[in-house]
Amino acid sequence: MKLTILGCYSATPRTLNNPTAQVLEIKNHLFLIDCGEGTQVQLRKSKLKFSRIKHIFISHLHGDHFFGLPGLVSTFRLLGREKELHIYGPKGIKEAITLLLKLGDSWTNYPLYFHELEGREPQIVYEDEKVKVSTIPLDHRIYTNGFLFQEKEGARTLNVEAAKVWEVDKSQFNNIKAGKHVVLEDGTIVDNKELTFDPPKPKSYAFCSDTMYKEDIVPIIKKADLLYHESTFLESEQELAVKTKHSTAKEAAEIAKQAQVGKLILGHYSTRYKSLEVFKEEAQTVFTAVDLAEDGKSFVV
Amino acid sequence: MKLTILGCYSATPRTLNNPTAQVLEIKNHLFLIDCGEGTQVQLRKSKLKFSRIKHIFISHLHGDHFFGLPGLVSTFRLLGREKELHIYGPKGIKEAITLLLKLGDSWTNYPLYFHELEGREPQIVYEDEKVKVSTIPLDHRIYTNGFLFQEKEGARTLNVEAAKVWEVDKSQFNNIKAGKHVVLEDGTIVDNKELTFDPPKPKSYAFCSDTMYKEDIVPIIKKADLLYHESTFLESEQELAVKTKHSTAKEAAEIAKQAQVGKLILGHYSTRYKSLEVFKEEAQTVFTAVDLAEDGKSFVV
Repeated sequence: MKLTILGCYSATPRTLNNPTAQVLEIKNHLFLIDCGEGTQVQLRKSKLKFSRIKHIFISHLHGDHFFGLPGLVSTFRLLGREKELHIYGPKGIKEAITLLLKLGDSWTNYPLYFHELEGREPQIVYEDEKVKVSTIPLDHRIYTNGFLFQEKEGARTLNVEAAKVWEVDKSQFNNIKAGKHVVLEDGTIVDNKELTFDPPKPKSYAFCSDTMYKEDIVPIIKKADLLYHESTFLESEQELAVKTKHSTAKEAAEIAKQAQVGKLILGHYSTRYKSLEVFKEEAQTVFTAVDLAEDGKSFVV
Repeated sequence: MKLTILGCYSATPRTLNNPTAQVLEIKNHLFLIDCGEGTQVQLRKSKLKFSRIKHIFISHLHGDHFFGLPGLVSTFRLLGREKELHIYGPKGIKEAITLLLKLGDSWTNYPLYFHELEGREPQIVYEDEKVKVSTIPLDHRIYTNGFLFQEKEGARTLNVEAAKVWEVDKSQFNNIKAGKHVVLEDGTIVDNKELTFDPPKPKSYAFCSDTMYKEDIVPIIKKADLLYHESTFLESEQELAVKTKHSTAKEAAEIAKQAQVGKLILGHYSTRYKSLEVFKEEAQTVFTAVDLAEDGKSFVV
């Protein structure tokens, strides 16, 4: 599982800092998470083969999280895309994108599906045999969801060496892979677990932006390997955080600690701060496994 | 008069090439012309004090000419703008921008005025005592206008040396500035022109993008000092130009020649071409005073 940060700054784009967008590579998927202005340029810079993106998850409809979407949808058309594209986001996103395409008389030549969200409880928005994506209801100035990306437990795999030791005939291998126990010629039953390897531990990633401090999300994101939690402000600007419904670095760390995540990634920094290290230092007073999101940086689990 | 190209490539943004946007500095105005995705970043790079922009002119509603507008409008709000902003563009532009602001629950705190266009004849869209801006109806796949920016003739200025020669009393200077003739003590009438300098020749800039070859525009842009005319293609792709309602470099030069403009600037290049020099070479077979638009480049008249 690999997360690439395309942009991690809040609101007003600067010359070198981009608004929120991320790509998650998980089980052969390339999921795009949020799409601030300039995301398609960031995608090109990342060298990711972005035509592979089939699912886009939009947290909320503030410009710094979705004003890059109309351009990306249009670019896919210009590049001759044929495969379908699914967009998951707050109610209203369909009206916005379709109006812009209609005004430009440039409807897509590929199937475009909108999955509009308005629920206040966690819900599964995408699922296949290998991954599951659910919403994490957040608390911001407008309707906002984070997203939890979870790998599913894979199948146990055959331990050929163990099979040899137990003198299991090869004709039994498919049964073993299918999870069955083996009955040897002498009647001994060999448990399937003796003949197989544990599947790799499923990984998970929780994206939480934008939100004020919200303890309700702790059980949802419990033990995620990776948590991106916004930290627009530092504790010294706590009042501003409350007023604008954002979090401080310390609050993000509190959530990470309670949820016992593997690693916390901070981001969505207000451009008022000159250095990012102060965010890390503040968070580490509460929780040690902290890293800083930076445009272009990747995190591998 | 100074024109700065913020972006001059067509459609799909590349890592280093930006879609259409320009800033025209004319008679103390900072006019923004078109606003493709990423324009606000380009504005920051240009070092122009872009809070001074009060009028934005949008040619048409294809994404590469206006998907940067919602972000710019939002950024002005975040920067605490108070002065009014006027947007001139095709009918529908108001619905698009207001919908996006409404979805983000982030209406501007400054007065925002839309001037929607739907006429097929040239019309004045902005005028004050020093400049006039009119539409140039173009022929593209959707409703499109170019814009003609014209300085107005300034007042004649006092020629102090000539006044001395004619022994005109200083008490007459205000009358002379007001355009009056002077009657000397001996009854001689001195023509105002003898006592004043001609005002500087008013300058003009014609922006024509996107459009197929359209001779009708020649009388409108006649003798403009500067003409930006799109040249998406070369003559070798003439069929594509017709099909997509764009122009070739040669066609742009034909318009420039017929209109007897001071200089032709080419732009809106398709990214299929590796070099821009070929555009210039092709145009110069018809018209010599040709220059190439490039992102970040300025033209002073």
